[in-house]
Amino acid sequence: MGLRFRPVETAFYDQFSESAQHLLVGTGLLAESLDGTADLADVASRMREAEHAADETTHAIIRRVNQTFVTPFDREDIYALASGLDDVMDCMDEVVDMLMLYEVKAMPTELLTDQVDVLQRCAEITAAAMPNLRSMQSLDEYWIEINRLENVGDRNHRRILAHLFSGEYKAMEVLKLKDIVEGLEAAIDAFERVANTVEQIAVKES
Amino acid sequence: MGLRFRPVETAFYDQFSESAQHLLVGTGLLAESLDGTADLADVASRMREAEHAADETTHAIIRRVNQTFVTPFDREDIYALASGLDDVMDCMDEVVDMLMLYEVKAMPTELLTDQVDVLQRCAEITAAAMPNLRSMQSLDEYWIEINRLENVGDRNHRRILAHLFSGEYKAMEVLKLKDIVEGLEAAIDAFERVANTVEQIAVKES
Amino acid sequence: MGLRFRPVETAFYDQFSESAQHLLVGTGLLAESLDGTADLADVASRMREAEHAADETTHAIIRRVNQTFVTPFDREDIYALASGLDDVMDCMDEVVDMLMLYEVKAMPTELLTDQVDVLQRCAEITAAAMPNLRSMQSLDEYWIEINRLENVGDRNHRRILAHLFSGEYKAMEVLKLKDIVEGLEAAIDAFERVANTVEQIAVKES
Repeated sequence: MGLRFRPVETAFYDQFSESAQHLLVGTGLLAESLDGTADLADVASRMREAEHAADETTHAIIRRVNQTFVTPFDREDIYALASGLDDVMDCMDEVVDMLMLYEVKAMPTELLTDQVDVLQRCAEITAAAMPNLRSMQSLDEYWIEINRLENVGDRNHRRILAHLFSGEYKAMEVLKLKDIVEGLEAAIDAFERVANTVEQIAVKES
Repeated sequence: MGLRFRPVETAFYDQFSESAQHLLVGTGLLAESLDGTADLADVASRMREAEHAADETTHAIIRRVNQTFVTPFDREDIYALASGLDDVMDCMDEVVDMLMLYEVKAMPTELLTDQVDVLQRCAEITAAAMPNLRSMQSLDEYWIEINRLENVGDRNHRRILAHLFSGEYKAMEVLKLKDIVEGLEAAIDAFERVANTVEQIAVKES
Repeated sequence: MGLRFRPVETAFYDQFSESAQHLLVGTGLLAESLDGTADLADVASRMREAEHAADETTHAIIRRVNQTFVTPFDREDIYALASGLDDVMDCMDEVVDMLMLYEVKAMPTELLTDQVDVLQRCAEITAAAMPNLRSMQSLDEYWIEINRLENVGDRNHRRILAHLFSGEYKAMEVLKLKDIVEGLEAAIDAFERVANTVEQIAVKES
């Protein structure tokens, strides 16, 4: 067992945890951008910084894969997990960017809050799960919960679209808002892909 | 050869066939939901049941992968095939849900019927192909036909969109209908991804 | 080293180069279709031919994988790379088809040109990178540049959408144009997936 936890492996687990921590920062900024009082340009600029920091971590993982002879699990799975975590950040950065660019007139903040709550919960349990990659313990609870959250997000999403289509909004505003709510759903889906990658790693290692 | 068809392998092939059978039920309900006379809430509720039954089969396959020492093909391919079949069901469930939620005023039923026909044909040949995973026979006919159907679906899709954009419908109705026809196309694409997974399994095993 | 460059391997590298050459033809036709003076039916028909030629190359690669005992890298990676290159062509073919079908009234040609420039640059460096698969040299420069181009394309994309939503266009025209600009972005993303596949192959081989 002493051999199993080599320094190089520990470094991978630490970096995946770091990557997930960036997502916690990202969901926090996303929540801020949608609270109805935000200075969007300011939040977008901080989101851009958080996205760059996440990129750094992703590239550091890829570099380590390329320089390491024995990796804790398959190289392509490390690559898939690192890219998957990075994709979540890209999705959230995109939403904040759209909020700033589209100049939406009447934002249905209360509706979108449900999706942001789902995203924050996804980020929390993803961050909590990453250190468990080492022992491969409790990972099934994590991906079952992510799948449940993705289902909740899916139901929220359709309810939000039905509301947008209710006739209360002009077609052009619906077009803008639909892009934004689809961006939120894409971020939830990206969290689910991370969980699927973790599940596949666990299936292989079992 | 006697050894090749062990009971545990047979169980996998049976479960993939069961999974594809759920898709036949799903395409039937989808056809019903679009025939212009359906009680949409009733069809949506039966679709939800079919989707749950499909989920059960998917999870049973994943459980068996985790408990089985020798699998008929790579664990990750079994996983990909099971998830792929499940994705088709999710797409079709989503379309029926949108039909119920969006309250479309003038449904171009005759146009959508072409796509539902493609989906029913996809489900039929996918269900017919699953038992052939055992012998790896006739699979190329299956994926060539799925690719052909996906091309037909693609052409239908663009024709339907061009019709929606013709000026006959209001922008808001186009937004609703576009979501629905994109849902149908997503289901066809999901069938194609299943066929691609089968093709990759066959390439590996060859 | 003499053994490493066997004729059969050379054939794979030649076919990937051929596949990338089709994409150069495709981006050329795409540029033509958006120059504001094109006979769209004529360009679409030549694009369809180019797409068929690309399909031929893809199928030839898959056939060779199935008939070859020792492949230069993993069968599934050859498969992923061939399909990935083919996906780019399908995306570009789809855009030209939409341009022909949708009868857009006021095409913001100057905006879309930026995305076509990104696509042409992607095609050029992808075509230049394919022969390097043999030596696995200079591939990191290729995928770093593709990632940079994808980021440029992403920023262009959001800027174009913000312009479409500015109030200058009617909702129905925005719906059409949004489909077209999303098609351009999908083609850029498809180039990025090709680069990611190349990166994964290099990670495995390193």
